[in-house]
Amino acid sequence: MVSSESKVIRHKSNLSWNSIKTEPYKNKPSNWAEIKRKVLVGKEADNSSIHLRYFEIDKGGFSSLEFHKHEHIVICVKGKGRVKIDNKVYKIKPFDIVYVAPNSIHQFLNPYKDTFGFFCIVQSKRDKPKIIKTKEGKGFSCDISKNDH
Amino acid sequence: MVSSESKVIRHKSNLSWNSIKTEPYKNKPSNWAEIKRKVLVGKEADNSSIHLRYFEIDKGGFSSLEFHKHEHIVICVKGKGRVKIDNKVYKIKPFDIVYVAPNSIHQFLNPYKDTFGFFCIVQSKRDKPKIIKTKEGKGFSCDISKNDH
Repeated sequence: MVSSESKVIRHKSNLSWNSIKTEPYKNKPSNWAEIKRKVLVGKEADNSSIHLRYFEIDKGGFSSLEFHKHEHIVICVKGKGRVKIDNKVYKIKPFDIVYVAPNSIHQFLNPYKDTFGFFCIVQSKRDKPKIIKTKEGKGFSCDISKNDH
Repeated sequence: MVSSESKVIRHKSNLSWNSIKTEPYKNKPSNWAEIKRKVLVGKEADNSSIHLRYFEIDKGGFSSLEFHKHEHIVICVKGKGRVKIDNKVYKIKPFDIVYVAPNSIHQFLNPYKDTFGFFCIVQSKRDKPKIIKTKEGKGFSCDISKNDH
């Protein structure tokens, strides 16, 4: 694929796409668990200024508790989950939209039985996340019911 | 809403959201029909560098046949439709992804009975579309079956 060519990426079934691989969430294990990533727009050959990724978090999993200057726009599409943003925790379900502003500390979690899936849109040029370490060494606990919004 | 605040936009039902209005596709009537817009991220008060809009095209409708320097990332989520990109026409269905590269001539169309809905992601800083005028004065005909891909 030459960079900056228009393209249609065909959905196969159940949030999988032709020629799109499932990858680890990040290259290094750290404060995340049970989360995988599919890069739909933004692979090596892409020259798009915006990247589109699809994430799935299985039961009990969570993304890194982190912050960065770049923004996230998230579109929930499968199952349900929670997002921690600064001091609040929100339950999210399909077609809820999340805007994560620059430097907000955030984390996506799945304390539910079914897989939680969402698109996440970012600028191609973005800063590296700063990870928040906790005592447990794995970020934010999944038992967050006290802070629900 | 202060700019650059994190937020969750709650989905109500059937691709409608709390406090998000349905607006005309564009301010001026021209080569488009039966298409409406909801701006999810990118309203006046938003300071996001990326904008997220949701479009619906009813039976027989179409967006402008146009091109511009900025890119589109489109996520189809409702019904089915077609997208013309340069000399090709693609049928698209839920969770197909479309990347429209800079300066590709493109148009979204709905020759089907049911409403066709899709998210469209753009940079907040973007150039004004250049409209392609046709003899019929309304862009590309909806009868495009000969060019299907």
